[in-house]
Amino acid sequence: MDNNARYQNFLKNIYVGINGELYSPEDAKISVFDRGFLFGDSIYEVTYGENGKLIFFEDHIERLYNSARLLNMEIFISKEDIMKQTLQTLKAAQIPDAYVRIILTRGESELSLDPNLSYHNNLITIVKPKPIYSDKLYSHGLHLIISDVLRNDRRSTNPNAKSGNYLNNVMAHQQAKEKKADDAIMVNHEGHITEGTSFNIWCVKNGVIYTPPEKSGLLKGITRQKVIGICREKDFNLKIDNFTPEFILNADEVFITSSTKGLMPVFKLNETTINETAQDRPVMSELQKYYNKIIEIELARDEYCYF
Amino acid sequence: MDNNARYQNFLKNIYVGINGELYSPEDAKISVFDRGFLFGDSIYEVTYGENGKLIFFEDHIERLYNSARLLNMEIFISKEDIMKQTLQTLKAAQIPDAYVRIILTRGESELSLDPNLSYHNNLITIVKPKPIYSDKLYSHGLHLIISDVLRNDRRSTNPNAKSGNYLNNVMAHQQAKEKKADDAIMVNHEGHITEGTSFNIWCVKNGVIYTPPEKSGLLKGITRQKVIGICREKDFNLKIDNFTPEFILNADEVFITSSTKGLMPVFKLNETTINETAQDRPVMSELQKYYNKIIEIELARDEYCYF
Repeated sequence: MDNNARYQNFLKNIYVGINGELYSPEDAKISVFDRGFLFGDSIYEVTYGENGKLIFFEDHIERLYNSARLLNMEIFISKEDIMKQTLQTLKAAQIPDAYVRIILTRGESELSLDPNLSYHNNLITIVKPKPIYSDKLYSHGLHLIISDVLRNDRRSTNPNAKSGNYLNNVMAHQQAKEKKADDAIMVNHEGHITEGTSFNIWCVKNGVIYTPPEKSGLLKGITRQKVIGICREKDFNLKIDNFTPEFILNADEVFITSSTKGLMPVFKLNETTINETAQDRPVMSELQKYYNKIIEIELARDEYCYF
Repeated sequence: MDNNARYQNFLKNIYVGINGELYSPEDAKISVFDRGFLFGDSIYEVTYGENGKLIFFEDHIERLYNSARLLNMEIFISKEDIMKQTLQTLKAAQIPDAYVRIILTRGESELSLDPNLSYHNNLITIVKPKPIYSDKLYSHGLHLIISDVLRNDRRSTNPNAKSGNYLNNVMAHQQAKEKKADDAIMVNHEGHITEGTSFNIWCVKNGVIYTPPEKSGLLKGITRQKVIGICREKDFNLKIDNFTPEFILNADEVFITSSTKGLMPVFKLNETTINETAQDRPVMSELQKYYNKIIEIELARDEYCYF
């Protein structure tokens, strides 16, 4: 299927809300003067729902507000309205297992960098079926590369603000594809691993779990926070600390966390095979069990249901 | 005037072309699935015309292609078509002294970072009256700050690709406004001055002209290239080399170059007054005369006329 056909196919099962109104995907458009379009001056969140129940909605909304805070972005609508509009699009879509993307821009303004010209936001909510990742990805794992596109520095464009400035990640992802890998992780200016293009990164060495700290320059993933919580509660040996490409290439286990993927193993990093079966990943397997329990509990909560 | 009224006023004299079709500003919209909107995955150029004659059009188109090359962005339309569509919007606008913005995105794709899913571009051309900068700005000058928002590193998001990832600049600009200054210049990770939020920076010390090199992390401005040419042709003492905030704060003259502003003096940097009249800026004044001559010659060329 060529890219055009692929895009047309993608449009068939997608629902868009803009500022509280529902649009067909063909009509879901935004002004060319929207600052999100002109400057990437927008923030966003991605989460999903299962069986008509949205997952960790409050956490994502909380993080949306944190992104706004980091970018001094004024939010003119209420938190309740953002949540209401999101659920409205989900309800219209009638997709039980749904992916949802919430985009909030600094609205239209005359052509000027000055964000103080902003006077309203545009809120776009996009709903589509939750992507289904193959069993093989969960059992065998991902092939990642360590990109030589350095992660944006937090003193320049803070990766902890989940914004519409994603070229840095696009470039790293493209490099992975060129090398026939699934995706890429990125290093900061000090040579430390930070995060993947759209996920956090973890490794295990001699029974100790490692994940980079916020100060390395990363987005504090919701799933990352949950797994940190598990480590603390269940007395895993966790070190939130900087590590190098050399260190992770020599790890016993490597895995990622992401809102849509959960915990997913990495079988190969650059040209180095880490391991290829769940038996070789005792620590990750245990964390995964605990994480699945958290998801079960979350799914049983009778809040933020759309079906 | 509040920001909404200001925006409505701005829309009154603006013309937009999208993929060769003209739109009223209210109808000038782009799909929410456009990668420019989702990821800032777009490139752009800004130039202007006087008396119906576009300035340095080829240079800008050349640079657009260089931005695409730096971002591995495939351009599916011909150079001739990009130029034709730009002139078409200019002709429709019937504004003799016009500002023009040319935006080229990686088009729509399904929700994925993968730029290889791109199958076409969206080309947006925006025309409005050329902004008129007051005589005072050219005689007295600008007040700039040196922002502590570091410029994106060229190994992360290369500033020489003029892209839709402009939050870095937006944040620095906002900091300038907070400090009641006009705009900001930015420093790189090594502590060297790079460029302004939307202009290049220059200074003069003991008769030597300094401007930062490409490797500091900057966009090679068209006006910057013209002034470098003047320096070389007219035997000015030019040093394209790194310098620090301390160095520029102690300069004899400071000025900026930009396509829409030309050469414009800086009278104050942070809290330091550099100088306040043209008499104190003999080197810049001379360069300005030569630059004005280049503009005159360019304006007399019978090419890329729209009126």
